[in-house]
Amino acid sequence: MKSRSTSPRVKLPAFVFVTQVIVVALYAAFVTYDEHADARFQTNGTNPMDNAFYRDYPAFAHVQVMIFLGFGCLLAFFRLYGFGGMVFNFLTAVFAIQWAVLVQGYFQFSRGGKIHLGVINLLNAEFACAAVLISFGAVLGRTSPLQLLVMALLEVPVFACTEWAVLEYLKINDAGGSVLIHLFACYFGLGVSFMLHRPGLDDGHAKQNSSYQSDILSVMGTLFLWVFWPSFNSALTVRGDDQHRAVLHTFLGLSASTLTAFALSAALSKNGKLTMADVQNVTLAGGVVVGASVDMMISPAAAYALGATGCAACMLGYRYLTPFLARRFRIQDQCGIHNLHGLTGLISCAAGICAILVADEETYGPSLYETFAHRAPAEGDPKLQELRVLIPGLRAGLGRTAREQALFQVAAVFATIGVSALGGVLTGLVVKMPFLDPPPDRMCFDDGLFFEVPPDYDSPLKLINDTTQDSAA
Amino acid sequence: MKSRSTSPRVKLPAFVFVTQVIVVALYAAFVTYDEHADARFQTNGTNPMDNAFYRDYPAFAHVQVMIFLGFGCLLAFFRLYGFGGMVFNFLTAVFAIQWAVLVQGYFQFSRGGKIHLGVINLLNAEFACAAVLISFGAVLGRTSPLQLLVMALLEVPVFACTEWAVLEYLKINDAGGSVLIHLFACYFGLGVSFMLHRPGLDDGHAKQNSSYQSDILSVMGTLFLWVFWPSFNSALTVRGDDQHRAVLHTFLGLSASTLTAFALSAALSKNGKLTMADVQNVTLAGGVVVGASVDMMISPAAAYALGATGCAACMLGYRYLTPFLARRFRIQDQCGIHNLHGLTGLISCAAGICAILVADEETYGPSLYETFAHRAPAEGDPKLQELRVLIPGLRAGLGRTAREQALFQVAAVFATIGVSALGGVLTGLVVKMPFLDPPPDRMCFDDGLFFEVPPDYDSPLKLINDTTQDSAA
Amino acid sequence: MKSRSTSPRVKLPAFVFVTQVIVVALYAAFVTYDEHADARFQTNGTNPMDNAFYRDYPAFAHVQVMIFLGFGCLLAFFRLYGFGGMVFNFLTAVFAIQWAVLVQGYFQFSRGGKIHLGVINLLNAEFACAAVLISFGAVLGRTSPLQLLVMALLEVPVFACTEWAVLEYLKINDAGGSVLIHLFACYFGLGVSFMLHRPGLDDGHAKQNSSYQSDILSVMGTLFLWVFWPSFNSALTVRGDDQHRAVLHTFLGLSASTLTAFALSAALSKNGKLTMADVQNVTLAGGVVVGASVDMMISPAAAYALGATGCAACMLGYRYLTPFLARRFRIQDQCGIHNLHGLTGLISCAAGICAILVADEETYGPSLYETFAHRAPAEGDPKLQELRVLIPGLRAGLGRTAREQALFQVAAVFATIGVSALGGVLTGLVVKMPFLDPPPDRMCFDDGLFFEVPPDYDSPLKLINDTTQDSAA
Repeated sequence: MKSRSTSPRVKLPAFVFVTQVIVVALYAAFVTYDEHADARFQTNGTNPMDNAFYRDYPAFAHVQVMIFLGFGCLLAFFRLYGFGGMVFNFLTAVFAIQWAVLVQGYFQFSRGGKIHLGVINLLNAEFACAAVLISFGAVLGRTSPLQLLVMALLEVPVFACTEWAVLEYLKINDAGGSVLIHLFACYFGLGVSFMLHRPGLDDGHAKQNSSYQSDILSVMGTLFLWVFWPSFNSALTVRGDDQHRAVLHTFLGLSASTLTAFALSAALSKNGKLTMADVQNVTLAGGVVVGASVDMMISPAAAYALGATGCAACMLGYRYLTPFLARRFRIQDQCGIHNLHGLTGLISCAAGICAILVADEETYGPSLYETFAHRAPAEGDPKLQELRVLIPGLRAGLGRTAREQALFQVAAVFATIGVSALGGVLTGLVVKMPFLDPPPDRMCFDDGLFFEVPPDYDSPLKLINDTTQDSAA
Repeated sequence: MKSRSTSPRVKLPAFVFVTQVIVVALYAAFVTYDEHADARFQTNGTNPMDNAFYRDYPAFAHVQVMIFLGFGCLLAFFRLYGFGGMVFNFLTAVFAIQWAVLVQGYFQFSRGGKIHLGVINLLNAEFACAAVLISFGAVLGRTSPLQLLVMALLEVPVFACTEWAVLEYLKINDAGGSVLIHLFACYFGLGVSFMLHRPGLDDGHAKQNSSYQSDILSVMGTLFLWVFWPSFNSALTVRGDDQHRAVLHTFLGLSASTLTAFALSAALSKNGKLTMADVQNVTLAGGVVVGASVDMMISPAAAYALGATGCAACMLGYRYLTPFLARRFRIQDQCGIHNLHGLTGLISCAAGICAILVADEETYGPSLYETFAHRAPAEGDPKLQELRVLIPGLRAGLGRTAREQALFQVAAVFATIGVSALGGVLTGLVVKMPFLDPPPDRMCFDDGLFFEVPPDYDSPLKLINDTTQDSAA
Repeated sequence: MKSRSTSPRVKLPAFVFVTQVIVVALYAAFVTYDEHADARFQTNGTNPMDNAFYRDYPAFAHVQVMIFLGFGCLLAFFRLYGFGGMVFNFLTAVFAIQWAVLVQGYFQFSRGGKIHLGVINLLNAEFACAAVLISFGAVLGRTSPLQLLVMALLEVPVFACTEWAVLEYLKINDAGGSVLIHLFACYFGLGVSFMLHRPGLDDGHAKQNSSYQSDILSVMGTLFLWVFWPSFNSALTVRGDDQHRAVLHTFLGLSASTLTAFALSAALSKNGKLTMADVQNVTLAGGVVVGASVDMMISPAAAYALGATGCAACMLGYRYLTPFLARRFRIQDQCGIHNLHGLTGLISCAAGICAILVADEETYGPSLYETFAHRAPAEGDPKLQELRVLIPGLRAGLGRTAREQALFQVAAVFATIGVSALGGVLTGLVVKMPFLDPPPDRMCFDDGLFFEVPPDYDSPLKLINDTTQDSAA
């Protein structure tokens, strides 16, 4: 017990200070401004309002709200772990973003040995951060902040490397991040969770439940995510009609999944009452499930149907698959990320592949070759010249057929799942080291371990708590 | 009691599934992309950044926050009905928006038998949804989710039809929706509430009060609405200076009403203490009251004075009119929508009519005919050619005089009130059917009826609750 | 006791009504629309989308969220003063903004005897309001709403006059408001607090602590501020790359200060546990500390290092300086504004001065003379013609050297601190008048004095409360 009371004073600060020194040294050595943020690049031909800032910042601001307030509130649903959910989300997110700027910069945004920094890099880094936070959902309440930081430290490079390899070599369409964010984060998180399995929690934990206030707070998180999800799914699409469709499809998908979630929550309960965990999570399935095809001409009705389908899969996952995984495969999944991001991500990818297979010039017109950039004719192909009359500045592609593109998507799905699951398991091996101060079983889901708690902490619940704890002991 | 415990498992899901199947069929049959969201319409003359998306999406995102977080938190003020307020708002809003896209599409946005979908349709649908949520405020806590969905199902078509008729035939100015949103929603909601009158609640209800946390949550909702109301009032105005004025007037109106609300709340109380219900509701009166004249050249001082006047009326309504309506006309109005939207809406319309009567070319310059599009000369009038030198692309109007326009506004007010009250009463007739599982009196304002509640639900309040319930019984 | 129960019914309303009448009279006499909001100025050469509204409104909306939700939630951290923190912030902010529009208008935005109103004025007024709210933090819980309004009434003119004098005569660079917002607000607030010193609170107060829910709410406020701070720091910078850099530096500074805050919070505690007050406040130091140099070419690494440094100073201030100031100088500082805004602001100014001293054409190119407008050659200087080839429309400056600019910055720092401290002390003299109903010691930090509180107020905490109060008595 003695080491417990002294060591966090040293380890967490030491980890943070060391990584901060390394980060600042790397920023000093390798990070410079991109041409939209560097004063030297402003010439008499530069119109300040054409700065990429005005294109990227609105979406960035929305994603900021999702990351810090959306995830933060959503993860604060345990009655005795509200600080932990919201505050460790804050800590982990900040750490992951600054680290992702460097790692993604190394893989994707470096020229001449320098990472060129603009708001667009922060936006990409927040997408990497979203992956880390989703993975965090699988182990919520069972990890120390030090474990979470180490997880982020390891997950970000695996993520950035996978992202780079998939975009550079497989060249897939993944506007909403179904493959690279949702599937990656889900299987990485499950890998970590598998390694962090605690037999002592197999029969649940007395503190693993919500309170009236924490449920309301968590719904607020859901609403922040719901409201700004269209910005998330459209942030990195081609400007113009592609981005417009991404917003429409995300909204319709979320609408369908929200209604379906309410219906199924009532239908699957014993007495027709709604379960707040469904309202908090399953309503969001539509945002994930439209991801892979979000910028394509799939039709509004298809986006709607997709949202309902994804929601149904997600709901059934919560009811039947999560308990099964926990029982059979020792995979505890606190927030049910396998349902909201895994199952739904797989359906999203399947739908995206179908949408790619049926995409043709009749439906898209010549901008087919903008939405599916890799299907554009290769440099030198006379067809490219023809198309450039219709779309000035069209970039040469690889001349892929729909079928080829679909096959690359399939390859990306399997590769991503494999790499992320393996990365997660290896990360879990590191993260489970006792050196990182994992909380003892008894103190899981309990803010008292890591925070100075106010005097009313637990007190209105003391009686109930004592009773349930006795029966659990 | 037995039917109660089983039927919600069937009815709510059945209603949702059936409507979802119908909605998706209608979307498949009739909804296509508008020219800003359809890839086929992008030609070599299209600049992606001119896409209507960039014009409409920022306002849409703000209105999203208002609808889901603003209304959601605001309606969560009952101490035992926080889930109900926030979650039924979520459910009802999503249902109303997807349905409004279809119904408004039918009336206003269809060409060639197809509804052309863009973000602008979602924005319009969220305005229809705002009307539904305002009406919901009148019956908060006394309705099952099924009743709310049926109410939305019926209110949206009445709303869309009224909106279409008023805009198509009476052609009024109503930038902030004073007539079409606030008055409509108010009298519709009161009509429903009149039919749902419960004699058992005439003397109040033991659960009909707030808690410390629910009051704070509700103030957060107020602040979300307050902060983004300028976007709401300006979302559909003419671009440029009209939109600019709409924001200024809304901000000034809200400022005046906020200060007035604090002053009156203290002045009208027994001991000078502030009432949280006033802070939550009456502060917002300024946003409603500037609505009808929000884009006109009314002067900043007039917007300010209008905000203070509307607030005073709203406050007096809460103190004297709401109890009177409940006692004399059997109209229970849980959130006092008649004060915040009815009285204030009427003052707004009166102010708008005055502003129309005094509007002239001296104050507005030639853009008079943009702000008041129906006063522009008709096609063929030589004056139109003259004006088109000053304002290229000015659209031909009806050549109305200020007085004519004012008369049409008056007609719109009365027509809207009549139609909405009648629609509300008829909707109430349907909604009150026992088949829709209205909660029993005893279980009004109680989340326990529709939600699995966490173990601490009610417990810190149990003693107080038991006492007050006894004395009420 | 008798006057207490009747007088607030009269004084607060009387103050508000009188000031409202004066404000509306001043608006009527002196406030008109600026050229972007006035219909008369729209000609056939006006493109509506070039309206300044589209440039200023997005930043304004973000700052609105910070002022009302960010500050509101952050200040609601006392367990029995949640209404007070959030609602008095609302009241004070609204009052300060409408008043600042007039006073700043008089000093900075008047032409021809008229104040020309646009969204840009509201944005500037919200910056003045931010200063008032920061000062409010020093006296939170120890003041009546009437005292707060009087403080705002007096602080706004001192602020606006200082701002005008510094910008007009000293002509400094202060993009993030380190001098004019943070230092001004801090020393003004400390001046007021010094005069409002209560010996009875020297040993703390039984109600001066947080609850589990209030801590979570306060973190939400922190997150609102964190997420939108880049908009705050960049709102008034030169468009284009300057604004882009301001966002990048603010984000990096906040990231560094957040991580440092977590590390130091654990390291400086007895048992390695995190303190919520640190998470709520110290994490934000990075936003303040990059302020003075936020638009300069300081390099990303320097922004990061600056964030960490500012955070360390802020944290040490909370631990050692705040108790020292309270003990030795009778300055009670409820929210520790001297740490978050004073110390950090001073470091920010020092860093800004260094950044100014090293700024040269090699690093900035010709846009040096845009970022540092006063270093641009004076009208008539042949160098100005040369530069205008490179930057069309460059405005003539004063031909200052880097060193001269730095000296003016130093002068501005000292002048601002002097004026604000003196202004604060004099304001405190007025505010402490018994006529303004300061709460008695016993009722500080207690919503029961100014609000009708719901029946559960204090009840779950009653036992704890009674015990601690007994021991404190």
